[in-house]
Amino acid sequence: MNKRFAIIVGGCGHRDGSEIHETTMTMLSIVEHGCTYQMFAPNRNQYHVLNHLTGEEMSESRNMLVEAARMARGQIQALEEFRVENFDAVVFPGGFGVAKNFFDYALNGVNCAVDAQIELLIKNIHKAGKPIGALCIAPVLLTKVLKNIVVTIGNDENTAKDVAKMGGKNINTVSGEVISDKENKIYSTPCYMLEANIKDIHDCAYNLISTMLENME
Amino acid sequence: MNKRFAIIVGGCGHRDGSEIHETTMTMLSIVEHGCTYQMFAPNRNQYHVLNHLTGEEMSESRNMLVEAARMARGQIQALEEFRVENFDAVVFPGGFGVAKNFFDYALNGVNCAVDAQIELLIKNIHKAGKPIGALCIAPVLLTKVLKNIVVTIGNDENTAKDVAKMGGKNINTVSGEVISDKENKIYSTPCYMLEANIKDIHDCAYNLISTMLENME
Repeated sequence: MNKRFAIIVGGCGHRDGSEIHETTMTMLSIVEHGCTYQMFAPNRNQYHVLNHLTGEEMSESRNMLVEAARMARGQIQALEEFRVENFDAVVFPGGFGVAKNFFDYALNGVNCAVDAQIELLIKNIHKAGKPIGALCIAPVLLTKVLKNIVVTIGNDENTAKDVAKMGGKNINTVSGEVISDKENKIYSTPCYMLEANIKDIHDCAYNLISTMLENME
Repeated sequence: MNKRFAIIVGGCGHRDGSEIHETTMTMLSIVEHGCTYQMFAPNRNQYHVLNHLTGEEMSESRNMLVEAARMARGQIQALEEFRVENFDAVVFPGGFGVAKNFFDYALNGVNCAVDAQIELLIKNIHKAGKPIGALCIAPVLLTKVLKNIVVTIGNDENTAKDVAKMGGKNINTVSGEVISDKENKIYSTPCYMLEANIKDIHDCAYNLISTMLENME
């Protein structure tokens, strides 16, 4: 099954951008299944830049597309270039940066706002009937946009409550599990929402891609 | 076999630092073999910063330890903290940045100089009789320091000639292969020195760790 996946990221590093292990394990898992991927990122500055050693804010600014190009070895396009008809499925890796740059859940909780470009993108993919995979915190983003969907965010009680307030439903998972909302074609896996190592992240990403492919024609 | 590996990196991104796929696939492969790793990087600025989308130089400076912490999720130590007695083996992922920051082969070719801290580190590991794994361009670094060793740099003729001029010997490989210099305990694999995708990089890293473990007590 040579399905074409789009991977949507922004930045490079879990504190202020997309999580690197979740992104590279998604890329690996797609290729392991004999499929291909194209990466996309918003061509604008990320919310802030954090020192990943100390957690402190750094007084500089970085562009999400330019930084994500580090993970993509330059093979990445601006989000404006994304055309839903060119892909069979879309995946959103997680990272704390997603909850600052794609929507501001990390800052404003359940009353967060979603970036207009990201919101329109998710609605368009969903309307086109294409499956969406979400890792780590990304299921909360999908819930904020699509509302009445079933996802997993691992087992964090507060995040699960927020998902419910947004109109969705969380199902607790252990590492490596995938929750399928077949009606809405939403597939999610906990990754670093749980205590995990890089092999656990590969297991999550691999099982996510397997499950998505099983449910595609 | 619960062997302890040290992974030596610097920066985050193949153009100006350590290659992200080679680093994360090394981490994954070590854990897949039931072993553990600790990451280390030099606590100094990298040679320069390149835009990974355009290849152009950016007018900023970045610290190799701070940037590598993005791949390590903060679990990384400065190279000064490395103690050879705490590890069973050491791995050097590649990336063009290695050939600018650890030694200046990318700039000065066969007459390159090796960073003093890196040179001492490699000599100490070798003297302690611990195996060293090297991906991509890193085998050239080991050859420059240790001279009379057998490595692979894939199949690039000019790089192979440089290895010979440095006193070493290259053996051409295809993707996924590992060259073992058992006498010197040097193990190398081509990775992105060849045309490759991220699954090929996982194959290279996995086979490298397997081969190193087979040759350890």
